[in-house]
Parts: sequence; structure tokens; C-alpha cells
Amino acid sequence: MTVTYTAQVATSSSTCFLKLLLRWKASIYKLVWKDFLVFCFSFFLLSFIYRFALNADQKHIFEQVAIYCDTFNNLIPVSFVLGFYVTLVVGRWWDQFNSIPWPDRLALFVTANLHGHDERGRLMRRTLMRYVCLSYLITMSSISAPVKKRFPNFTKMTEAGFMLANEQEILENIKASFNKYFVPLAWTTSIINRARKEGRIKDDFAVKTLIDEVNSFRGMLGGLFNYDWISIPLVYTQVVTLAVYMFFISCLMGRQFLEQDGDTPDIYFPLFTFLQFFFYMGWLKVAEVLVNPFGDDDDDFDVNALIDRNLSLSYLVVDEMHAEHPELIKDQYWDEHDFELPYTVASESYRPTNLYLGRTLY
Amino acid sequence: MTVTYTAQVATSSSTCFLKLLLRWKASIYKLVWKDFLVFCFSFFLLSFIYRFALNADQKHIFEQVAIYCDTFNNLIPVSFVLGFYVTLVVGRWWDQFNSIPWPDRLALFVTANLHGHDERGRLMRRTLMRYVCLSYLITMSSISAPVKKRFPNFTKMTEAGFMLANEQEILENIKASFNKYFVPLAWTTSIINRARKEGRIKDDFAVKTLIDEVNSFRGMLGGLFNYDWISIPLVYTQVVTLAVYMFFISCLMGRQFLEQDGDTPDIYFPLFTFLQFFFYMGWLKVAEVLVNPFGDDDDDFDVNALIDRNLSLSYLVVDEMHAEHPELIKDQYWDEHDFELPYTVASESYRPTNLYLGRTLY
Amino acid sequence: MTVTYTAQVATSSSTCFLKLLLRWKASIYKLVWKDFLVFCFSFFLLSFIYRFALNADQKHIFEQVAIYCDTFNNLIPVSFVLGFYVTLVVGRWWDQFNSIPWPDRLALFVTANLHGHDERGRLMRRTLMRYVCLSYLITMSSISAPVKKRFPNFTKMTEAGFMLANEQEILENIKASFNKYFVPLAWTTSIINRARKEGRIKDDFAVKTLIDEVNSFRGMLGGLFNYDWISIPLVYTQVVTLAVYMFFISCLMGRQFLEQDGDTPDIYFPLFTFLQFFFYMGWLKVAEVLVNPFGDDDDDFDVNALIDRNLSLSYLVVDEMHAEHPELIKDQYWDEHDFELPYTVASESYRPTNLYLGRTLY
Amino acid sequence: MTVTYTAQVATSSSTCFLKLLLRWKASIYKLVWKDFLVFCFSFFLLSFIYRFALNADQKHIFEQVAIYCDTFNNLIPVSFVLGFYVTLVVGRWWDQFNSIPWPDRLALFVTANLHGHDERGRLMRRTLMRYVCLSYLITMSSISAPVKKRFPNFTKMTEAGFMLANEQEILENIKASFNKYFVPLAWTTSIINRARKEGRIKDDFAVKTLIDEVNSFRGMLGGLFNYDWISIPLVYTQVVTLAVYMFFISCLMGRQFLEQDGDTPDIYFPLFTFLQFFFYMGWLKVAEVLVNPFGDDDDDFDVNALIDRNLSLSYLVVDEMHAEHPELIKDQYWDEHDFELPYTVASESYRPTNLYLGRTLY
Amino acid sequence: MTVTYTAQVATSSSTCFLKLLLRWKASIYKLVWKDFLVFCFSFFLLSFIYRFALNADQKHIFEQVAIYCDTFNNLIPVSFVLGFYVTLVVGRWWDQFNSIPWPDRLALFVTANLHGHDERGRLMRRTLMRYVCLSYLITMSSISAPVKKRFPNFTKMTEAGFMLANEQEILENIKASFNKYFVPLAWTTSIINRARKEGRIKDDFAVKTLIDEVNSFRGMLGGLFNYDWISIPLVYTQVVTLAVYMFFISCLMGRQFLEQDGDTPDIYFPLFTFLQFFFYMGWLKVAEVLVNPFGDDDDDFDVNALIDRNLSLSYLVVDEMHAEHPELIKDQYWDEHDFELPYTVASESYRPTNLYLGRTLY
Repeated sequence: MTVTYTAQVATSSSTCFLKLLLRWKASIYKLVWKDFLVFCFSFFLLSFIYRFALNADQKHIFEQVAIYCDTFNNLIPVSFVLGFYVTLVVGRWWDQFNSIPWPDRLALFVTANLHGHDERGRLMRRTLMRYVCLSYLITMSSISAPVKKRFPNFTKMTEAGFMLANEQEILENIKASFNKYFVPLAWTTSIINRARKEGRIKDDFAVKTLIDEVNSFRGMLGGLFNYDWISIPLVYTQVVTLAVYMFFISCLMGRQFLEQDGDTPDIYFPLFTFLQFFFYMGWLKVAEVLVNPFGDDDDDFDVNALIDRNLSLSYLVVDEMHAEHPELIKDQYWDEHDFELPYTVASESYRPTNLYLGRTLY
Repeated sequence: MTVTYTAQVATSSSTCFLKLLLRWKASIYKLVWKDFLVFCFSFFLLSFIYRFALNADQKHIFEQVAIYCDTFNNLIPVSFVLGFYVTLVVGRWWDQFNSIPWPDRLALFVTANLHGHDERGRLMRRTLMRYVCLSYLITMSSISAPVKKRFPNFTKMTEAGFMLANEQEILENIKASFNKYFVPLAWTTSIINRARKEGRIKDDFAVKTLIDEVNSFRGMLGGLFNYDWISIPLVYTQVVTLAVYMFFISCLMGRQFLEQDGDTPDIYFPLFTFLQFFFYMGWLKVAEVLVNPFGDDDDDFDVNALIDRNLSLSYLVVDEMHAEHPELIKDQYWDEHDFELPYTVASESYRPTNLYLGRTLY
Repeated sequence: MTVTYTAQVATSSSTCFLKLLLRWKASIYKLVWKDFLVFCFSFFLLSFIYRFALNADQKHIFEQVAIYCDTFNNLIPVSFVLGFYVTLVVGRWWDQFNSIPWPDRLALFVTANLHGHDERGRLMRRTLMRYVCLSYLITMSSISAPVKKRFPNFTKMTEAGFMLANEQEILENIKASFNKYFVPLAWTTSIINRARKEGRIKDDFAVKTLIDEVNSFRGMLGGLFNYDWISIPLVYTQVVTLAVYMFFISCLMGRQFLEQDGDTPDIYFPLFTFLQFFFYMGWLKVAEVLVNPFGDDDDDFDVNALIDRNLSLSYLVVDEMHAEHPELIKDQYWDEHDFELPYTVASESYRPTNLYLGRTLY
Repeated sequence: MTVTYTAQVATSSSTCFLKLLLRWKASIYKLVWKDFLVFCFSFFLLSFIYRFALNADQKHIFEQVAIYCDTFNNLIPVSFVLGFYVTLVVGRWWDQFNSIPWPDRLALFVTANLHGHDERGRLMRRTLMRYVCLSYLITMSSISAPVKKRFPNFTKMTEAGFMLANEQEILENIKASFNKYFVPLAWTTSIINRARKEGRIKDDFAVKTLIDEVNSFRGMLGGLFNYDWISIPLVYTQVVTLAVYMFFISCLMGRQFLEQDGDTPDIYFPLFTFLQFFFYMGWLKVAEVLVNPFGDDDDDFDVNALIDRNLSLSYLVVDEMHAEHPELIKDQYWDEHDFELPYTVASESYRPTNLYLGRTLY
Repeated sequence: MTVTYTAQVATSSSTCFLKLLLRWKASIYKLVWKDFLVFCFSFFLLSFIYRFALNADQKHIFEQVAIYCDTFNNLIPVSFVLGFYVTLVVGRWWDQFNSIPWPDRLALFVTANLHGHDERGRLMRRTLMRYVCLSYLITMSSISAPVKKRFPNFTKMTEAGFMLANEQEILENIKASFNKYFVPLAWTTSIINRARKEGRIKDDFAVKTLIDEVNSFRGMLGGLFNYDWISIPLVYTQVVTLAVYMFFISCLMGRQFLEQDGDTPDIYFPLFTFLQFFFYMGWLKVAEVLVNPFGDDDDDFDVNALIDRNLSLSYLVVDEMHAEHPELIKDQYWDEHDFELPYTVASESYRPTNLYLGRTLY
């Protein structure tokens, strides 16, 4: 359910990022509004108590506490610790995305190396890719709640066609105290070896290529599993959370407008404190959203769609498109050495005057 | 439409970076001037209202609000959050550039491994490279607006010679709910297998090399596609945008010169506030420009030119230059062991006295 | 004993990170409470002395010292140096995790390439994997205290079945002034060569694959060893520690409520100073916990469990599952080109309307 | 013209970095002194005008402007933006250095794989390496001003022996709108193929190794070219430059000693403002020097020397040293298992008592 | 002479990092004490002059200068520039450590691929590894002062058994204006080719593996050499050094206790200024120690020990242990599918209840 907005920011303009502020889905408002309401309510409650419920002496104590709280705002470098922590979380988030394997690569290798248009050839190619997708599915259902909801157990996977009944039985009979995602990949290597024996794979090179690729697919799934297992150390997350919440608790008192300050105007609605709340809490929410990108947030990776895409693409490449290519026909510039590619009217302005040849020519 | 200025900064001098301030294309002025006008107008409008339209009481309220706004400037660490955010965006921008694949590598492999000077040999080599360029083109037209304007559909690609009519038909008939950029690469592997069967590729090694390379080309295109799909989480961008704009809205009021400050001079033109605007807004524009480097900004990657270059270079390498090399002739230093390469008069000063041999010799 | 909390933060909500504050294991409270007690006691002791034990003149000196200490708080940028140092430590911590090798990869290669269902085949495959696990074990027992406690010497390893008596003897007889973790891996290569000679490995490719893999396993173990050997330079750690502790020592005096400040309320319990203590000390504890992730902390890597898992998984893959794969049966979508995968009711909301096709389509 | 100073800082001592302050070449003084003179002159000119040329009213206005300017110093976070920008520039600088390819690797492969001591063998090996060096030279002359001065055109390259006349003719006749640096590498692959046909390269493996290596050499040259083409976006550089210069312009006025401040002493020479100038301007100069490391600065890479070294080393390895190795003789420790290597008296103190065996042993 | 302290910080406790403050070797105290004495002496000298040597007018001037100096402390962001600089230096330091090649990898390849138990086989294997170690030694003696002291010239290397007399002669006769560290590696490739011809290496694969490995060994040595050659640009180091020293010079005056401040107590011993000195100077020393990790500092890499270890391990692997492996015997769990590994009593607490199976299961 990734929220993509790159199209809107293709070109910098004076409203480019401003427009993004109007979005709701995956937005700061959607993430922060509940916290904001709690904060608002508490703030005005305290304000009300101070203005109407307290007598002079109590007001004085209130004011002293407020002043004390206000000085605290400078004692904890919230922005500093948030800057470092969010940088860490964003780094892990992108590393996790890059750890998601794509079966495309393997599909191209399988279609290129495992030959034969007969039924057994098709069967082998399709089964190979199905096992790869199954392995992907088992891993994802272990680490992603939305996938778990869709495929809560092996039976659902079988129903969806990722497994056959006999395979499910074998899988369930394997005694292992660890996650079994790698089992279908082990089957894959056996099938590759069989195909080599049957001569459907022509050379040992291709076997090596395929097994290497299966293994690096396994490695990436293992990597995803490790990201799931080894969280950012709890104490770091606690330190950051503590800093932000303490900051706002101190703000509740410290930002109250006190009667004794003759100078500053008595503005009932502390606009900037609220904006500050949006800012710091939003920054913390960046971390909350990204710390587990396989969850249910608007900006989490859309793994269910990937699962569909992978199986569909795999079958397309290794079965329908196998060993097919269009007839070889001479292209348009066959006898031309010095051709120029056309530009549409709309894109005429992009026609480059000269290609860059190196800085020393300028 | 990349703006290159490395030639101007080849050597550090007292005016080196200063000269860059005079450029207009891709400059901060070009990016910021519209926002600046809006800011200026608003500032002077408020100033005018304060000085001429308000009575004393209203002025007092205005002044209180202004003072309140002024204190806000220190509440949000704009520079801090911009520093981290821009670092993230610049990192992604350069990673995206590095994800752009170059067909040069594949062209060299094709010309080295797919032999035959006859028509069919040429046909295979040219078609291979054309498919690679086509795959590049489809990806780019999916993620880059300028390319989309130039090649809005498959027909335009066919007209430009990247596809033939029959290939377009096949491509359009493939039912897939996902982007088809990988299809021509699948054809490529089939052609490579055919060439091996026909003996034009001599050994299984070369097949592996070529298919590996095609696959890593596909991987890089997929990578570009993913950068397009997975934006920096919206909430992060919103947090930063909010911070910067709120800062300037508070400046509009907070930086007004108030009559009550006897000390500070009443300067009608708040030069430094405006410079500050240029600075922070310019920093934000760095992010706006780089967050989508495949758009229309002055500094975005010049993908249309790359498309032309790639096809042209591919044909040059695999067809015109195929298997050609100059006659083997003895070079100038054939019998000399201890030769010295000449320096021109202009470069005489660069002649090194000694090559570096390791720190322990000094 | 890794503490995983990703499941709790799968979805950002207003209590998402707040809930983490309630945990005890691996928490900031568990790490900081002892230091906190010492700090509290010292603070109140000083406060008590000031209020009740000193006469007016002594109080004046006390106050002067307190003021002097208070200004010191701003002299040392504790947050700054902590931010950089913790970033460094977290980077090393994650690099170390990524340096832990997994025998899975090698197990898949062994089962795919070393053929034969007879006893000698099984023996070779099992022995190969056992040596790999042994090598892992020797390294880990050298760098991890919990593993050392479990396997204090070679004899314990032999008892656990990682080594046989004759192997232990050979290992002990090797004279080497350096760690012997690599020895079983050298044996491994010899066994691979023998298997090739006996024809159990079919081609030279597979030999190369296996030896490459053994070698990169060795490289990763060597990498772990190096992380153990080369600590972050002592002086850096000292600088950071000094900064944090000096800061709190100056707080002990500087944050005392003095009688002479008429303005600030006399709050006996300096809440925010204590919160600040939790914050900075917690941040430092992040570094302490992560600087050596093979120790006894709650958040350290659970190496003992990995050792069990590795041997168990290795035997499973290369022995029980060797060359087995389920019968090849046609899958569910054999004749369908355009199938759709099912969604459960619970996951219906995740059904994507459209796959992402590139930004230019929006 | 790289300035190496690692030898001076081999050991930390109390004067270690201080000594570096005394160097002139590539130093901050050499880079900053012109800017400094301009700054000094402007400062004292303003000071002179204020003290001697203005009447009381004008002085008052001057003072007001000065105070206004002085507050500006805190409005722009010069150090912050410089810190991030310089980190980016230093990162690119080192990446560029790592993108410089070294022909050593290819030379070793060529000498190991392309056999034959006869003239044609030598010719092939030397020509191969010459083409590689030529390709290097063409790229460097496109991106480096000092190399361009030395080799302003192809004719100079021919005269220097990198090309022969016939090769220059072919190169000039190739019609291409893009840089031709890759052409000699294409020839290289043709020669490799020819050598394989003539049996001088023994196996297809070696061909693959060599072509892979040629291709990765091309890739690195292309990488250098891209660094040259894609500068750090102009707007970022402008933002930083603007910040620094605006800061110093505001300092010119803001740091003037005003008569009205009774407190601060009237120091005619504003030492610390000048030191601050050195500091910030020097930090900016770091960026100026490194932003284009192929230019004329003292600290830029010494490419002309590398060009000489590469050709000379290439010929040495593939020709003079080809297939030579010293007679195989038993080494000193042939029958010793337990030998100890000697230490000189001077290095006796380095003799390690024990090799590190792992932390658990301590 | 690396100082390892990981064992002491295996588990976070309230005294964990505190204990590190008590160490002397490689400590901040050892590095800073000389500078500290100079600083102390200067400070008290100035203090003495101010208190006893000056008359009232002179005192007034002194006070004015002191106040002026004190404001300077805030003008230069010492901590900021140190933070970025030290991060850069630490990054390079660790990259350099990772650039140190280990012959272990090559030794395993040699013993696995170069067969033959006869004398010539041994000779070849030992000579190969000796050349590799020699190449390592030549590089290290070029960049590391302690190694240079131990092996000041080729003759010392010959005496130590890294070279034989005839090899030294050949090496010395090679005319080259660049470092000759690569020469023994070129010999290595020749020996590998000879071994292939003699049939001691069985297949072309192994040749490729070995030559690739030799080449990547050369690449890493070249990398070390480059780190030595290309220092962090002098101007950056100067900027940082200037900032720190100027800061402390301004402290000498600015932190003097002045008689005119009635409020702050007159503390003769400025404890916190001295602690600040330790902090900033220690931070700078981190950079000094790490900027050249091949020098004489307590924390520099212990290259001399590595040189011994490498030769010793090489001979052990390729000669003594060549092609040996223990007899193949059935392991302890041969017929068990479901075994459990034992825990000692001391480690019982580490027994995991359950292996982690993925977050969705919790």
C-alpha cells in the first residue's frame, strides 16, 4: 500500500512540496491526529484549571512549576537524537526493501537454460518457479502481518495454488525447530540436478548459474528474516521515545500563558506549540512507520501484491514466453550509419544540442 | 539537461565558487524567485498595514503577535531537519544515477562473443542490442515525464525504430498486469540461445556471460523502477516542508520592525530576513529538485539524450566496429626499457620529480 | 537472547512506541537503574548537607560552586559527541551481525553437488557440514563469553558431537601461535578434493563452487575475529565516557535548588534533572550494549541457539532431504493464463486495485 | 601533485598536528590569503570611515546598521550547512579516486594468459596494454585540465607513443557524437579473440577473464566520466556559498567596534573575527579543492604521473617480466615447523608477546 | 600493538565503561598529558601575572581582553567540525583495516588446487605463498614505520627468509620508478602457469581461481598504498587543528577569573576548563591516532605480528596440512533425526526456549 508521490514532484515549482501537504493518506495528519487531540485536550484542561479553578497562591505554585518546566525544554536535545535515530531507521528501511528478492532474475535464467517444449519441460520450469514463489510466500507470511492474514497456514497456500497437497504433507512432516522457508529451495536444487541428468539443462555451467541464483534468493530471504529477528536495540528506541514524550509533557505546563508575564500577549490558542507538536511528533512517526515496513501502515511495502505479481510473472516468463522471440527482421537504420532519432512536438525542447564530451572542452 | 559546472571549479581560487553565484540556469534564483515574490509581497503588505492602517491599540496587538512569532523561530530546528533530509535525498539521487544501466558493457560482450560477418550475424547482434535499448526505453518512458512526452506509446517507439511492427503486436498481446519492460530482455535470451545453437557463439561460457549481463541489465532497470515506486515516505517530506513553511510564516510577522523597539534601527527593507529566505528555501529546493531526478528540472538527468546515445553507440560497437582492430604494428618504445613520455611546454610544470614510493621513504 | 519487538510496532498508532516504554527486559530501566540510584543518593545527600548542615558562610560557598557547576553544563556538547559515537557503534554492531556466516548456503551447495545415497556419500556430506559447524563453534567460543561457558574447551566440543576424538587429537597437536578455527575448513577442502577423485562430485565447476564457498565462510569467521580484535580505539570511548560522567557530576552540584534564587520554585525532587539522567545515561548504554554484541546483555546475539540451529539444519539439508523433491505434478493454473490469486476475508482490504506501472501513468 | 603528510602524523604526539600548521603547499593559508586580504581591507576601510569620516548622526546610523548586522550572524547556520556539504563533497572525492582504474590487474591477467615469447606474442601483449593506456589517456584528457594541456589532441598522443598514425586515422574517422574513449577497448577485445583463434590464449576461460576485465576497466572510465558530467547540483553549491559569503559581509559591519559599547574594549585589530574568517573560509575551500579533484589544485590527483606510470608498468609486466620467475629453490625454513622470524634491534620493542587469540581468553 | 578491550565490555553494567577510564595504555591521559601540562602552566602563569604583577590600569586592560576572548568561545563550532572530521577519519581507519589482505584465502586455494606430495609440489606451494608474503612485506615496509625499522632494506628481508639471494638480485635489477611490491605476485602467476603445464593443477578453472585471487591480493595491497598516498586533504586537517588550538588559546585568557565579576566565585583551579581541555583535545587525539594507523601509536595495527603470522600460517596450510583430513568416521547423531545439543551447568541459562520463527507468530 505504498504511497507514491514522485509524479507530483517531478519538477520543482513554488507549490511542488506544498501540494504534498494537502494529502491525507500516509500523511502526518493521519498519523498524528489522535495524539494531537490528547495533547490539545490536556493543554486546555490545564489552562482552564489555571485560569478559573485556582486561587492566587495556587496560581503562584502553578506558575513556578510552569517556569520550571519551560526551562526543561532546552535540557534535552530532542531534535538531535531524533535526527540520528531517524537516519538509522530510514537506512534500515531501505536496506530491507533492497533485501526483498525478485524471482525475475531466476525466471530469466530458468527459461534460458532449462530447455524443452514438451509437458515435462513445462512441468519442471513451472514447478521450479512455483517453489521459489512458495519459499517467498512462507518467509513473507512469517514476517508480514498482512500476508499472514491472507495465508494464515499452509492449507491456505495450497488452496491458492502455491503448493500441492502432497508437498504440503511433506513440508509438515519435516521436523525442524526453525522456520522451513528454505525447504522448497532445497527441492529446487534437486529438480535442477534431475533436469541436468535428463539432458534438459545442457551444461554444468547452467547448473551452477541456477543453483547460485537459488542460493542467493535464499540468502535474501534469510536476510529479511534477520531484519525481522534483530530489531534496533530496544533501549535506543526507548531513549528516543522517552525524550519526545517527556518534551511534550513538559510543554503542557511550560507553554501555558502565565498572568505574571506582562510582556507576552495572552494568546489562548498556542499556535506555535501545536505546530511544534506536529513537527516533533511527525518526525517520531517517520520512525514508527519505517521501523517495521512489513506491517499495516499506509507506507508499508505492498507485499500481497508482490506475491501475486511474482507468481504471475514467473509463469509468463518460463512458460508462455519460453524460447520465443519475434522473427529477426532488419531494423530501420540497417544501412544508415548516421541516423537521428525523432522527437515529438511536445518533447522538442528536450532535443540536446550536443552530448557532453568532457569538461575540458568547455 | 544536467547543468555541469566542474570545469569552472577545476582550481580553487578566491572567486571560484563566487562565479557560480552568477549563473541563472538551475540556480537558486530561478528556483526560488516566485516564492520570494510572494514572501516579499506578504511582508510589505503586513508592514504597510501596521504602519498606516492600524490605530494604537491595534498596533499593540500586532506588536504582541509579532513578538510571539519571533520567539517561535527558535522552537523548530529547521536547519537540523533540513540537513538530515537533504543528505537522505542527495544519497538517493546519486544511487538512482548509479542504477541507470549502460548498454556499453553488453555491447562489448556481444561484439566479442557473437561472431559472424554475414547478414544473419549482423542481424542478431543488432537485434540483441535493439532489444536492450527498447527495454531501457520502455522503463524510462514509465518513470520519466520528458521521455513519456517523446514516446507516449508503443507506436511512437516503433516509428523511431526501436521496435518493428510485428514486435509491437506481440508486446501488446501479452496480458500482464505489470510493466512489460522485461519482455524484450526475455527475447534477448532466446536469441542468445539460438545463436549458440547455430554456432555463432563458440562456447557455453560466452552464453553465460551474455545472459548474466542481460540479467544484470534487467536488475538495474528494475532498480530504477523501484526507486520510482517507493518514494521517501510522505510523512518525512511533509514534516520537513511543514517546518520550513511554518518558519517563514512566523517570520512574516516576527521580523516586522516594531515602533516600540527604540534600539534597533527601522530598516524598511529587511535584507537579512530575505537572505535567510533564500538560504532556507534554496536548501529545501535542493531536495525538491533531487527527489525526482527523472523530471523536468534543469538539473535532472538528460534521459532523452542517453536514449539516442545508447542506440547509436550500440550499433556502432556491434556492427561497424565488430571484430575490427588496427593492424598490429610495433610501438614507439619497442626496444626501449627506460623511456620517458614527453610533456608539452604548457604542461611542463606538471612533470613529477619522483613518483610516490611510500611514506617511510620521506 | 535478542529482544524482538517488531511485531508490536508493525503499525504506527498513537500508542505504538509508548507501549515499548513498559517493557523491562533489555530496557533502559534495567540498564540504568543502578546508576540512577547512585545518582539519586548523591544528589539528595548534597541537598541535605546544603539545607541542614551548613552555616550561612558555607552555604554561600556551596552556592558559588553550584553556580559555577551549572554553567559547565553548556561547555561540553554531550549530545553531540554521543550522537556521533552511537552512530559509529550501531554501524559496527550491524556490520558484525552481517559478518556472521550461515552454513545454509554451503549446505545447499553440498547437497546439490556431492552425490550418492550410500553410506560413504552420507558420511562425506555430514562430515563436511560438521567441520563447517565446528569451525563456526571454535570461532564463536573464542569471541563470545556465553559460548565459552558452554564449550570451555575442545573436549566439551567433542562430547557435544562437533568433533570426534581423533579429530580433537589432530587439532591439539597442531602447533600454531594463532587461533585454529580455520583448520576444520582446511580439512573440508581435502574432503571435497577426495570426493571429486571418487567421482561423487561430477565436475570441476562444483569443486570450485564448494571451495569458494568454504573460503568465503572462512573469510566471514575471520571478519568476526577481526571485529573482536580491533575495538573502537580506546581513546574515543574514554572521551565519550568522560563527557557523560563529568556532565552528571557537574549536575550533582549545579542542579541543586539554591535558596538565593527567589524566582525558581524550590522543588525538592528535581524531576527533569532525573529525566535528563535517564536520557543521556540511556543513550550511553546503547553504546555499552552494542559495543560488544557477543556478550551477555539482553540484546546480544543469541549465538548458542545459532550453533544448535546450524548443526541441525545442516544435517537436515545434506542428509535427510538430500536429492529429494516431491513428485512433479501439474499445478493449479496449468492451463490458465489469466488467473487471480485468492484473498481471505480478513485480508480482503489488501487486494490491490492496480499494480504500479510507473509514475508517468498517473 | 597530491600533498602527502601521513609520514609526519605516523605517531600522535603533542605537536603532531601542530607541525602541519606550518606547511604552505596545499595549505589553508595559500588558499585563503587573497580572500583574507580583501576582507581585511574592507574591514579597515569601514572602520576608518566610521572613526574619521562620519559625523555624529551618521555614526549613529552606522551603529544601528552594525548592530542589525551583528544579530544576523546567528540567523544562518553556516557551520551546519558546511558540515553536511563538505561531508558530501569529501565522499564524492574519495569515490572518484576509487573510480580510477589501474591497468596493473589487466597486465597481470594478460601476462598470465596470453602466451608466446615470439615477436607476435610480444606485439599482441604490448598492443593490448597500449590500447588500455590509450583509453585511459583519452578519458583523462577529457576530464582533467592538466592532462588536456599535455595532450591537447590526438596528434600529441600519437607523438607520445600511445597511438600509431594508422590508429589515429581510424579513430578520427569514426563518426560519433559521444566521447570515443571506449574505441581502443573495443579493439582490445578483437585482439583477444584473434589471440584465442591463433592459440596464444589456451582456453575460453582466459578469454572470459580478459574480456571481463577490459569491460570493468571501461566501466570505471565511464564512471569517472559520469562524475565529471553530473556535478553536485548547482543549487546546493550556491546555497552554501551564499551562506558563507553573506555571513562575512554581515561580519564586516557587525564586528566593527562601536564607540557606544562602553564595556567591550576597543581593539583595533579584531583578531578573532579574522580567525573565524580563516576557519569558515578554509572549510569552504576544502569543498572547492575537492569538488573537482582532476584540476590544478595542490591537492588534486596527479594524473599526468599516473599516465606515465601506467604505460611503463604495463610494458614491464607483459613484456620484460613475461613468464619469468626466479628459479625454484628451497626456502630457509624448509624443514622447520616452528620457526621464529628475526627482529632488528631498532624494532625489538615491537616483538609481540602473544598473538591475539580471542577475547574469551583474557 | 592494538589495544583490545572488548572482553571488559562484554556485558553492560553500571561500571562497564567507567572501568575503561582507569586504563593507561592507549588512553586519553597518555595522549594528552603533555599538552595538558603546557596548557596548565600557561594558564597559571597568566593568572599569576594578573593577580600579582599588574597595576589597576593594566588589570583593566587584561580584563577587557579576557572578556573579549571569552565571547570568542562561541564563535567557532569546535564540536561541530570535530564531529564531522573524526567521523571521516574513523571511516578511513576502518576501511584501511579492511584493505589489509589476508593470505589465508589464497593458502586454502593453493592447498586445494596445487596437488602433489613430492618435493617439487611442496616447493611450488611454499614458494607461491612465500612470494605472496614477500609482496605483503614490501608493501608494509613502504607504508609502516615499525615494519621499516624491522626490515629497512631487501637484505634484511632475505635474511629473514622472505627472499632468497637470487630473487633479491632480480628484484634489485628491475628498473622501475614505482614501488616494486607487485613483482613477486607477477612471479606467482608464472609459477601457477608452470604448475598447470606440469599437470599439478588439474584444470583451467583452478588456474583462473588462483590468478584471480593473486590479483585481488595485489589490488588490496595497491589499495593500502593508495590510502598512504592520498591523505585527507591537508587543508581540512589544518582547519580542524586551527579551530581546536585557537579555542584553547582563547580559553587561556577568557577563562581567567576576573576580580570584577562579583558573582562568580574566585576558584583558583578552573576544574571544568581543564576537563573541557581533556575532552576536546582527546577528541582531536582520536583523529591523530587514527589518521595513520600504520604508525607507532598504542592503537595502531600490529603489522609486525601479522607478517609473522602470515608466513607461519601459509606454510602450515599449504605444506604440513596439505591434502590431509582426519579419517571419515560416523558422527554422534548418525541415526538420530531429533537430537539436542548439551549445555554445561554454567551455560544452562542460555538454553533458548524456542527459536525465533518470525514475528507473526507472536
